[in-house]
Amino acid sequence: MIVDADQDPIVAFLGLGLISGSLAGALKRSKWRADLIAWGPRAPSLERGFALGLIDRFSLDLPTVVAEADVIVIGAPPEATAQLLPEVLDLALASGEPVVTDMASIKGVIVEAAGTDYPRFVPGHPIAGSENSGVEAAYPELFDGREVILTPSGDTETSALKAVERLWTTAGARITHMSVADHDAALAASSHVPHMVAYALTSMLTDHSLSPMQHGGGALRDMTRIAASDPLMWRDIALTNRDAILTAMDAMAQEHEHLRSLIAEADGNAIETFFSRCRAVRRQHDDILNPLTPESEQTN
Amino acid sequence: MIVDADQDPIVAFLGLGLISGSLAGALKRSKWRADLIAWGPRAPSLERGFALGLIDRFSLDLPTVVAEADVIVIGAPPEATAQLLPEVLDLALASGEPVVTDMASIKGVIVEAAGTDYPRFVPGHPIAGSENSGVEAAYPELFDGREVILTPSGDTETSALKAVERLWTTAGARITHMSVADHDAALAASSHVPHMVAYALTSMLTDHSLSPMQHGGGALRDMTRIAASDPLMWRDIALTNRDAILTAMDAMAQEHEHLRSLIAEADGNAIETFFSRCRAVRRQHDDILNPLTPESEQTN
Repeated sequence: MIVDADQDPIVAFLGLGLISGSLAGALKRSKWRADLIAWGPRAPSLERGFALGLIDRFSLDLPTVVAEADVIVIGAPPEATAQLLPEVLDLALASGEPVVTDMASIKGVIVEAAGTDYPRFVPGHPIAGSENSGVEAAYPELFDGREVILTPSGDTETSALKAVERLWTTAGARITHMSVADHDAALAASSHVPHMVAYALTSMLTDHSLSPMQHGGGALRDMTRIAASDPLMWRDIALTNRDAILTAMDAMAQEHEHLRSLIAEADGNAIETFFSRCRAVRRQHDDILNPLTPESEQTN
Repeated sequence: MIVDADQDPIVAFLGLGLISGSLAGALKRSKWRADLIAWGPRAPSLERGFALGLIDRFSLDLPTVVAEADVIVIGAPPEATAQLLPEVLDLALASGEPVVTDMASIKGVIVEAAGTDYPRFVPGHPIAGSENSGVEAAYPELFDGREVILTPSGDTETSALKAVERLWTTAGARITHMSVADHDAALAASSHVPHMVAYALTSMLTDHSLSPMQHGGGALRDMTRIAASDPLMWRDIALTNRDAILTAMDAMAQEHEHLRSLIAEADGNAIETFFSRCRAVRRQHDDILNPLTPESEQTN
């Protein structure tokens, strides 16, 4: 078999953590035929990623890495991504105009920071993660069967979009497209507010005089697992997607209050109808929520 | 080895479902040296339990089964248990005074139904379950490492208490004792309200115009899993532990509202402190919440 070494683009990861490390691992798993390189503000996580065989080399000098890359993947929380993006796009314009994408879980703040001058930037968000963080927690199966949402605008170059799509399908993910506003509202409901609910529940249990967490079973295990997520990342998300999160938290509070009133009224029929509808909806989404590796500890 | 066939008591299960079937399976796993028998209002689940090798025989005649048993385990939701209990205790008094225990997840309504005339009744609650139901979902590992809370009163006979404790430790569980009121308040917080929160979250997502469940990841998988629980059983729990559940729901709503206000104020430091505390508490309880079989789908 003749292998064309030029067929795959050189991918550069800016910041190496759980998500970018897992993407690098997934590309390595696919026998990616080009170097995977990385930049970061500090050496340790880059050294670990190199030692784990996730990347081929790294540098602490951002212009060097940008100049060498065909595709640049920014792997950082929303606020850090928004801060880094203008500099990266400036460097990209000044070099070979590589494709640039990001993985931040909020897109409004990112698209705003990117501006409109670089049509080879493709905003992205893989719906996968873990309550663990750091490149040492990376694993190549993280994206298998998972959704990656891209939010291109009318100005996004098709060739750039295709390059980012190929990266993710190679990693085992499936691609969907959404508008930036829809993405941020949907994710506030499907990911951010579930985290806020897990935090609020854990806090309630912590303050309870009977230490109810001592008597927790599988329900509590699942309902509090993501309360162990990275506090800095989730503070960042809470602040950068604030309006959409507040809207979804209000909708959540309203449902909770409605259910409370049914229980207070001891309205057995209405309670049963409420629960039955939830069961049916949850079961309809079993395939999406438990894709390929239901036993793995995925989040987001 | 000489085996004394009289060493183990004959155990009768009144109602055969996930929990009682799993207990029967766990006793079979331990090579219980006495018959396991069952009664139920209808034949099908008893026939399935017999076909699965969980019980040795069954009858649709309650007095026959009670008369033959040394230990009686009532396996039914709270309301059904409360309804059945007086008749069972009357039959028990009229026969050889077997030990009677139950597994209902609320103890107040049960202890009230039992009255005070039968000191060989031991109220119990295994903290284990599943969003699946029925005897066909039973598995003998369900109680491995799990807690079983017993709520004996000062009048409970020690020999009866010991017999019930032996049943559960044989099944792999660990025993704790609590007062009835503390049990119901702690379980409202650790189990019942997490279910209400999962139901409310699922309902919010169902009514959302962007179908956010289509974009769910592992967080949503875990935060909605128990919304597929049995609607009848949870209606029953909501009604029979109403006051304690309303109290815990109010505490939950207050925490949620507090977190909302921190986000609305964009108070990054307070948000981070809130999240960090939750992470620490959740990690402190990892051993309790993920006992022996973290991959199994346990609930309650």
